[in-house]
Amino acid sequence: MINLCILGSTGSIGTQTLDIVRDNKSKFNVVALSGNNNIELLHKQIHEFKPRYVAVNNLEKAKLLKSKTNNLDVAILSGIEGLKDIASLEEVDTVVTAVVGNIGILPTIEAIKTHKNIALANKETLVAAGEIIMNLAKDYGVSIIPIDSEHSAILQCLEGHNKKDLEKIILTASGGPFRGMNSDELVNVKYIDALKHPNWNMGSKISIDSATLMNKGLEVIEAKWLFNLEIEEINVIVHPQSIIHSMVEYIDGTVIAQLGSPDMRIPIQYALSHPHRIKLNSNKISFDKLSSLTFEQPDIETFPCLGLAFEALKTGGTMPAVLNSANEELVSKYLKDEIKFYDIPKGIEMAMKKHKIIKDPSIDDILTIDKDIRQYINYNF
Amino acid sequence: MINLCILGSTGSIGTQTLDIVRDNKSKFNVVALSGNNNIELLHKQIHEFKPRYVAVNNLEKAKLLKSKTNNLDVAILSGIEGLKDIASLEEVDTVVTAVVGNIGILPTIEAIKTHKNIALANKETLVAAGEIIMNLAKDYGVSIIPIDSEHSAILQCLEGHNKKDLEKIILTASGGPFRGMNSDELVNVKYIDALKHPNWNMGSKISIDSATLMNKGLEVIEAKWLFNLEIEEINVIVHPQSIIHSMVEYIDGTVIAQLGSPDMRIPIQYALSHPHRIKLNSNKISFDKLSSLTFEQPDIETFPCLGLAFEALKTGGTMPAVLNSANEELVSKYLKDEIKFYDIPKGIEMAMKKHKIIKDPSIDDILTIDKDIRQYINYNF
Repeated sequence: MINLCILGSTGSIGTQTLDIVRDNKSKFNVVALSGNNNIELLHKQIHEFKPRYVAVNNLEKAKLLKSKTNNLDVAILSGIEGLKDIASLEEVDTVVTAVVGNIGILPTIEAIKTHKNIALANKETLVAAGEIIMNLAKDYGVSIIPIDSEHSAILQCLEGHNKKDLEKIILTASGGPFRGMNSDELVNVKYIDALKHPNWNMGSKISIDSATLMNKGLEVIEAKWLFNLEIEEINVIVHPQSIIHSMVEYIDGTVIAQLGSPDMRIPIQYALSHPHRIKLNSNKISFDKLSSLTFEQPDIETFPCLGLAFEALKTGGTMPAVLNSANEELVSKYLKDEIKFYDIPKGIEMAMKKHKIIKDPSIDDILTIDKDIRQYINYNF
Repeated sequence: MINLCILGSTGSIGTQTLDIVRDNKSKFNVVALSGNNNIELLHKQIHEFKPRYVAVNNLEKAKLLKSKTNNLDVAILSGIEGLKDIASLEEVDTVVTAVVGNIGILPTIEAIKTHKNIALANKETLVAAGEIIMNLAKDYGVSIIPIDSEHSAILQCLEGHNKKDLEKIILTASGGPFRGMNSDELVNVKYIDALKHPNWNMGSKISIDSATLMNKGLEVIEAKWLFNLEIEEINVIVHPQSIIHSMVEYIDGTVIAQLGSPDMRIPIQYALSHPHRIKLNSNKISFDKLSSLTFEQPDIETFPCLGLAFEALKTGGTMPAVLNSANEELVSKYLKDEIKFYDIPKGIEMAMKKHKIIKDPSIDDILTIDKDIRQYINYNF
């Protein structure tokens, strides 16, 4: 029995994680959940999964949930301290970090320091603080298993093979909902169009990131830290069908690929059961019914965010954190219709240009930069 | 340094094995070679690779080669005894079985009994005597690493994953040179057309097997023994581009695939260096330059040999050996233009119908059946 703390249980990854728990009650037990705003859903989840602790980031909503659950055997915590507390509970084995954005950093650190394994969906934590997090995990002997389908694929393509035989990894990208459009057409696209992802059903922030290709950029940085790669070893290829979830090429020309239906339960479950697998009633790939699998180079001219991510990774130090904070703030504005599509890369580039990098930042440095960059974006947009 | 005995060094796999040796002189050393008829090439190979032993199956040719190499420090052996002798030399670490057909059975057994690892290209040995060979390898603690690109792919897709999580394997087939043709068109096709394989450059016997889809049938049986599978766990899908060399599906819906250019040096080298890899200057896959990857069900009506192979495997006992011997004899006749394309499945079916199976055959049983079936085919065609 694996005891879980799910940070971000009301989001897309969180609810699918609970779907897996529901189907595998003999294997997983929910000790703690967290949400931000959606306390109606949290309330339902408390009734169904009976966690002993629930943290709500929003203080007002935490109070409201507390009043609704007075008669239940559950402790309601609040704010970032609440998230940190439930991530470090003694009875928890694995923390699923399914929150969106930089808010994942501190709870993840607490979880590692208290020897929890991490099932990581919150890629921003690795983008902003990858070196710190990975070193910490090493020091505390903790596994960080990715939930992102691409990184889950890479992990599975590395298992059983020698890391020293690796030539490069190939992250596949669907190309997002705007693949094939040119920059003139993209000038006025709205967030509502970006939310219509062709293959995956995802949360709103990651859907915008997918539309700008920043999602792939963040994944490049995430991959660098998760698998200890050089930037030259990370390649991106557009594969619109999202059947091959990523690949690893070895020095003899062999490529190992992981394929599957676009169903996030597969990588979520693998992160929870690794290195074992659990039977899943997902849609199996019927190869004879597949349309053909195709590949193309990403269009970095039309989608500059991917290039910016490579640039930030190359510069190193705090630059990926800057890219990440600026992107997070700009996406949140784009989701409120306050800025246009190309303001996202423009704002990120401005923030990166202005930033003086710190080579070996502390977590405090990264959190300070996060505040500063958000202020800077809000001042300029 | 790995000391090699290459059975069948003048064939397609044999010469490519020597290409790898030539490029990796610090890793591999040739102790023994064997050929059947092509003593001119054997003579050249002796000069270049300086083996201490060479076996020639054909007795006359062996004498001729002996007279040509009197001044060289090489022992020339002959006949099946010669093959058995060089396969069991004390100084040999790995035996590459690259001969074609049932002739591989006895030398392979000798090699296993003298604790050599086997790099197996001679699939007919496993088809005819899979259970005996695999049990023997287990008893003697010997690895049998496949050279066939499909089985090399399956091996690589299993490495690092749990066999108990396997749902099925998916052997890919190019479909051969006659894919898409109907039975009316195939009635009069000649062996010369069958030798034009769309993706692979191969020997003549395997090219005909590829044209009839018997090659895939033999591979199904080979896979059963190599990976200890149930017949229901073995699937075949036609993938005309020959980029995905085979796949393994797991219980969670994950599919792991091995991809590469159609270059036999990749699986040959992997069989020799397993579990390590050696850098190879092969054509790497450029995904953005790939035509699309497509898949379709094999056409068992038009190509009945694949169905016959599944049937033989299902029946078990000596039936796969019957299928294999009948096929070998019929292909040899087809290559001499003595029979027509559909005489191959017809003859196999006749031989299978007539055969009374032995449940747990000895090697002697299998060798007797081999002779009987060949006589039967020769009598009827």
